[in-house]
Amino acid sequence: MAAAARARRVSPEASITVLEKSSHVSLGVCGLPYLIAGLVPSVESLIAVPEKELREKRNLNILTRHEAVALDLSARKVVALGPRGHHREFGYDRLLLAPGGKARRPAVPGCRADNVFTLQGLDDALILLAWLDRPSCRRALVVGGGYLGLEMAECLCQRGLEVSLWEKEGRFLAFEESLSQRLVQHLQDRGVTVQLSSELQGLEGGRTGPVSCAVSHGQRSKADLFLLATGVDPQISFLKQGAFDRGPSGALRVDRRGETSQSGIFAAGDCVEIEHRVSGRPIYLPLALPASRLGRVVGENCVGGQARFAGTLGTLATRVFELEVARTGLDRASADAAGFEVEVVEVRAGTRAGYYPGGQELLLTVLYDRRTRRLLGAQAVGREGAVARVGIVSAALEGGLTVDDLERLDLAYAPPLATLWDPLVLAGRISAGSPHGERN
Amino acid sequence: MAAAARARRVSPEASITVLEKSSHVSLGVCGLPYLIAGLVPSVESLIAVPEKELREKRNLNILTRHEAVALDLSARKVVALGPRGHHREFGYDRLLLAPGGKARRPAVPGCRADNVFTLQGLDDALILLAWLDRPSCRRALVVGGGYLGLEMAECLCQRGLEVSLWEKEGRFLAFEESLSQRLVQHLQDRGVTVQLSSELQGLEGGRTGPVSCAVSHGQRSKADLFLLATGVDPQISFLKQGAFDRGPSGALRVDRRGETSQSGIFAAGDCVEIEHRVSGRPIYLPLALPASRLGRVVGENCVGGQARFAGTLGTLATRVFELEVARTGLDRASADAAGFEVEVVEVRAGTRAGYYPGGQELLLTVLYDRRTRRLLGAQAVGREGAVARVGIVSAALEGGLTVDDLERLDLAYAPPLATLWDPLVLAGRISAGSPHGERN
Repeated sequence: MAAAARARRVSPEASITVLEKSSHVSLGVCGLPYLIAGLVPSVESLIAVPEKELREKRNLNILTRHEAVALDLSARKVVALGPRGHHREFGYDRLLLAPGGKARRPAVPGCRADNVFTLQGLDDALILLAWLDRPSCRRALVVGGGYLGLEMAECLCQRGLEVSLWEKEGRFLAFEESLSQRLVQHLQDRGVTVQLSSELQGLEGGRTGPVSCAVSHGQRSKADLFLLATGVDPQISFLKQGAFDRGPSGALRVDRRGETSQSGIFAAGDCVEIEHRVSGRPIYLPLALPASRLGRVVGENCVGGQARFAGTLGTLATRVFELEVARTGLDRASADAAGFEVEVVEVRAGTRAGYYPGGQELLLTVLYDRRTRRLLGAQAVGREGAVARVGIVSAALEGGLTVDDLERLDLAYAPPLATLWDPLVLAGRISAGSPHGERN
Repeated sequence: MAAAARARRVSPEASITVLEKSSHVSLGVCGLPYLIAGLVPSVESLIAVPEKELREKRNLNILTRHEAVALDLSARKVVALGPRGHHREFGYDRLLLAPGGKARRPAVPGCRADNVFTLQGLDDALILLAWLDRPSCRRALVVGGGYLGLEMAECLCQRGLEVSLWEKEGRFLAFEESLSQRLVQHLQDRGVTVQLSSELQGLEGGRTGPVSCAVSHGQRSKADLFLLATGVDPQISFLKQGAFDRGPSGALRVDRRGETSQSGIFAAGDCVEIEHRVSGRPIYLPLALPASRLGRVVGENCVGGQARFAGTLGTLATRVFELEVARTGLDRASADAAGFEVEVVEVRAGTRAGYYPGGQELLLTVLYDRRTRRLLGAQAVGREGAVARVGIVSAALEGGLTVDDLERLDLAYAPPLATLWDPLVLAGRISAGSPHGERN
């Protein structure tokens, strides 16, 4: 919808048709965990722009419950399966592929049982909500500790469930060890059973009863409900193999204008790879912000524009109970892979003057290249100030700053809001080998 | 103390003497309003590093209650008035002048009365605290709406006083009108009587009774306590007129190494002008952070170093009741004066996804130059997110970004923490004439 709305704004006269598989458009899917937690009162409140307004004020021909099932490149037609089971064809001058991603289900036994859920769209959320209403539903196992798994661990706790969270890697969110540990501790403090380095081997007994077992490296865990938050794949099986160039992840490859290898066909959202501006490499990063950004670009270009997508810095944030967790740029492994000589500075600092009540500890890591001293990324965890610091580093990455420039940043000091030497300033100082701030 | 500690770290063998007029060093004076509010439990908690530690571990010869009263340039000696009223002389190879600022008292009648206070140091705070203990002390008038005046209006309210706040300019903190108005509204909501464009003409009846009147443009206001928060001046009357170059403000002029016009004599803190990095012009900005920064620079240079001070971006922040207020860079008037063609973008935006509970309205202005599109500054007011946005702009100023670069910033989106399109991204978009974000 970002693309369609943008196309309409650029071209008042273009004929714009939107084919949408589900029964709704313009839904804030990032809010689904909070709908499940009961924090968001209704599905309606997740609708950013009502369909009626999109149709009438923006003159968009929106066809919900129309799933694109085939694409005829030579005839320039899309075939869609409509709500009554019949096929319809749609011709186009320019085509935008925005089918999104599809929740990944691990290729292990039992993942199709009735009490195994994913959370990809509203339908998934409604099915899950119905299951949660059963009084027998008391224990949940969340498989996957990405941002969705972390958010769902919290949201299921808030519904009163006993929650376990399994992550196959040794750390959450590719964070540095200490930050990941801080997050583990916070989850445990809030009653979540956390298991890192635990990969799902299979689910047992799902069809025959409500209690199943998940098996990982010999461990078992009982639950009444399993949520798979193990990532998404591009939902592009309706495209003929070989018709479009794909990147290493299997997602579509597009140029900076969002155009695929087929002239006149654009793509955006969770079906494409985008460029990481720090590494210069393509990555598959199915997040709302780059999807919406590239959506605006291709919306403009579908109607003759020449907009360019600047890529992503890989910024990600969420709140897990009281803790802000955020990162931007490259993590250590991806920076290594991109050929940088990674150095990491870690800072633990207060978020307010030491004497001011209510201050919290902020844990921050800054990654930079040893040779050029160029900033590569940052990660932060804390009850306050983590997202702010990552935003500042994001702007610093945009400006091409070095780690030494951090020491010079003029970041506000006020006792209720910050320490005299901001953690980022300290990070710059530590990287220069002069770590000791005067505390007054 | 920032300079002394830094000098010691760079030079373990230098002989370093500190002459301090008051009875303490290393006191976090920015915390004095919160000491008065009762939020900070004791004077001791404001001491960043105990004097004993500074003496013994850092080997600093600290002489409190020693006021520098004269400087003999040819003999390279400082004359100090000691605690028992006798004079002592101190020779030096390198001298650092860091006498700080002195609270300004308007040149109007009545400003020396017993119930008229300033808040420059601990002694001021103790006298004020004693006065506040009088049961008859119920109404306070704060004169001056800079950050100290704003903080003290809040802190006196928190002690249960009825508080009025007078500011001689038409706006607080040189903010754009809408932001200043938001701050006025918040103060009024918390019970503070706010009068803008009200300059103090005089105080009446102060010596003869506890209730006085302040007169401004014909208006009068009764109070039991008057706090003058009308700025500070460099405290350099002990220096011979003409001995040192001074800037337009009357404060000492120093080069980037912190050296005055007298070779071997450095200066830092609230007695010097510093360079504003956006305008390139010298300004008098008596704030803790640039003072401490230049302090570290001169500390290093006093013992033979070649450190350089990068200047300031003029970042300032505080919290006024529940409201964060912050700015960085140039305000409209100073940007005009520096020859920029100022354009201002204003954004009102939520701080969380619309459906997520607890979001607040953030009010943000971004200033840029019409010709070059270079960013000049930003101001923000809101219950959350204001300081963060100003920090991001501060980093953007450091990187020399344009207003158009803001649209590309990769700032985290997560429903509990931010909107999809950050207010800064929207500011960039608005400046490009394409204001309409898609909201989903």
